[in-house]
Amino acid sequence: MRQNAFYAQSGGVTAVINATACGVIETARKHRDRIGKVYAGRNGIIGALTEDMIDTGAESARTIAALRHTPGGAFGSARYKLKGLEENRAEYERLIEVFKAHDIGYFFYNGGGDSMDTAHKVSQIGKRLGFPVRCIGVPKTVDNDLPITDTCPGFGSVAKYVAVSTREAALDVVSMARTSTRVFILEVMGRHAGWIAAAAGLAGNGNGDAPHVILFPEIPFDRDAFLARVRDSVERYEYCVVVVSEGTRYADGHFLAEAGTRDAFGHAQLGGVAATLAELVRSELGFKYHYAIADYLQRAARHIASKVDVEQAYAVGKAAVELAIAGETAVMPTIVRTSDKPYRWTIGKVALGRVANREKMMPRRFIGRDGFSITQACRRYLEPLIRGEDYPPYRDGLPTYVTLRNKPVERRLDTDFVLK
Amino acid sequence: MRQNAFYAQSGGVTAVINATACGVIETARKHRDRIGKVYAGRNGIIGALTEDMIDTGAESARTIAALRHTPGGAFGSARYKLKGLEENRAEYERLIEVFKAHDIGYFFYNGGGDSMDTAHKVSQIGKRLGFPVRCIGVPKTVDNDLPITDTCPGFGSVAKYVAVSTREAALDVVSMARTSTRVFILEVMGRHAGWIAAAAGLAGNGNGDAPHVILFPEIPFDRDAFLARVRDSVERYEYCVVVVSEGTRYADGHFLAEAGTRDAFGHAQLGGVAATLAELVRSELGFKYHYAIADYLQRAARHIASKVDVEQAYAVGKAAVELAIAGETAVMPTIVRTSDKPYRWTIGKVALGRVANREKMMPRRFIGRDGFSITQACRRYLEPLIRGEDYPPYRDGLPTYVTLRNKPVERRLDTDFVLK
Repeated sequence: MRQNAFYAQSGGVTAVINATACGVIETARKHRDRIGKVYAGRNGIIGALTEDMIDTGAESARTIAALRHTPGGAFGSARYKLKGLEENRAEYERLIEVFKAHDIGYFFYNGGGDSMDTAHKVSQIGKRLGFPVRCIGVPKTVDNDLPITDTCPGFGSVAKYVAVSTREAALDVVSMARTSTRVFILEVMGRHAGWIAAAAGLAGNGNGDAPHVILFPEIPFDRDAFLARVRDSVERYEYCVVVVSEGTRYADGHFLAEAGTRDAFGHAQLGGVAATLAELVRSELGFKYHYAIADYLQRAARHIASKVDVEQAYAVGKAAVELAIAGETAVMPTIVRTSDKPYRWTIGKVALGRVANREKMMPRRFIGRDGFSITQACRRYLEPLIRGEDYPPYRDGLPTYVTLRNKPVERRLDTDFVLK
Repeated sequence: MRQNAFYAQSGGVTAVINATACGVIETARKHRDRIGKVYAGRNGIIGALTEDMIDTGAESARTIAALRHTPGGAFGSARYKLKGLEENRAEYERLIEVFKAHDIGYFFYNGGGDSMDTAHKVSQIGKRLGFPVRCIGVPKTVDNDLPITDTCPGFGSVAKYVAVSTREAALDVVSMARTSTRVFILEVMGRHAGWIAAAAGLAGNGNGDAPHVILFPEIPFDRDAFLARVRDSVERYEYCVVVVSEGTRYADGHFLAEAGTRDAFGHAQLGGVAATLAELVRSELGFKYHYAIADYLQRAARHIASKVDVEQAYAVGKAAVELAIAGETAVMPTIVRTSDKPYRWTIGKVALGRVANREKMMPRRFIGRDGFSITQACRRYLEPLIRGEDYPPYRDGLPTYVTLRNKPVERRLDTDFVLK
């Protein structure tokens, strides 16, 4: 039996989420006997709820192939979390209405923990509302905080960006430290888990190399220990490079820099921890400082993407389609590491119920005893993930990223659905 | 006659200043009949004044070649400006003392406008103090604000970084604009001249492409016009990407974000303009925002350097040595553009007196009539400068940048010189 597929991107986008889209669409096109059209939701699940879909069939093979090297979310993404079936049954009934109208029998949802929760909930409409749809969660998150899977597509590239940037900035700072800037602070993403900050540790190899201080959300911020470490680094090496996770917080749980606003998932919106630390360094130690805030640049930096990450992003998209065709539902493909050296990985799977809403923190054994560094075990884990370069094509000095036509799928329902 | 050479790096470092060092040292090594040793000053001119020099002869050909792809300043840099001969004759006498002690007959000074002033002053010791030394200024500045030369090595690479980053971040923002961040602000360098901010304009090509707003130091900041432009962009395109130069200021000359401190040259130290604009957008327009501050990352980003820039950086180093050997003094090699399309350039020269302490602003005809964009003339100028990629070698996912041994030159003077 041939049915159409729905694919959507959810949550913060990455440098390689479109490589996953490429994997989904290209693989579906190889199975035309089973999958008719691939409809992409505009802005994640919202596209399904509002019957706002894109016909990826209108795009050429060449355009779809170019998604592999294009950052951002080609179909639009959103942070929209379905409520439980009991709390908002109307949302599920609407999904069924849209899926029926467009003969959708496959649901691929590409996102992080919150999105896996959504995919898991959608998978329940088969059993509980009697509408059969194969639901596959497809992992994506720069935060690397999904459980079970060895890593999450998106993370390896941001890790590489942060490690490369730290190494480069350190060479700049050390050049002028004796007469100018002593302390350089790089603020990186990672709301609850310190994986991205940890990746900066790959920039050096001990012996005074930068970064000299890494601040993890997992380790409560200790003002005095931090200042002592910065002073010590400047005394020993003439300079100090600090990499700080946006999610760094005090022992009482308060973030160093809470902006006071919340995002659509209800999470506190963060910003400004670098400026907070810089002011602390200036007022307490008197050192001249500079700080950088990588923000979206880090997760959009396709130009310095990790080859391993791109391959894994594509592979989970491909695997998602293959799992669905094999009759699986309510699962997520995972990346399974079978060897550190040489690095080898394969694709596995896990039930969505086991990954939804669970965050994988850095294990304590990955963080140095001092709380400011990474361990050899952490290096062994991280190193393979940033391996290899996968440069996009360039024209006139700039990467040639693709923009899709995003042809809308003609609506078949005359009802509107109002998002709450 | 064979004499030794002194080479030093001055002012803020760049992704390619070491490519210039590579050009100087490799070329000097080809002229061993004229140039004996190349001594590098540790931390710019300070290394000469304090007799703190590095023997580049201790480095292998392979190591020197690797400087071509290594960012930062391999010998240390500093912002130290010589006073006039009348004001501080002792500094010049000290230079003569050190040059005599080490048989230095060539002086290569690699920097921007302030550094060309220093090189120019040093060149006067020949005529006025009777000590003959060939003084060649070697251009370098990410700010692109040296006059006469078509561009300055260092600028093309930061321009490429900013254009690529803007294009990438825009793809991220537009993915989620409908439900999340509407306004993204990228803060870039450029204290007095808007060249770096202008380069972001290459990311798009009109028709709603990012960046939608560029703020230049050359155009007084107009709060209302800025807010109207941001609102208009969000209404038309769903999002707005703003690229702001750190040197953006009000009509009265005050910077949008003055940190209140000054650097060693007496310039106001800037920072925080992105946060200032973000707060304005939030409070006046109510849009959700994100901002990035590229800071040192932009000028250290050798991983995305412009091939044209690397070639020019090397070429001015090479030309400096050749000019000196040809008997020139008190000059700076320049980059001369002979054709836009196809882009062709050659090396020229200019008297140091004509470049010292003069800043080249963006001509008004390079800035759109609206004050927020670049013109076709500006594109024609900028486009060739970011052309080509010149990737450094990688090992285990990270660029293999070189660190020199930096073997000190044995001191021959028993006098110390105290910097003022």
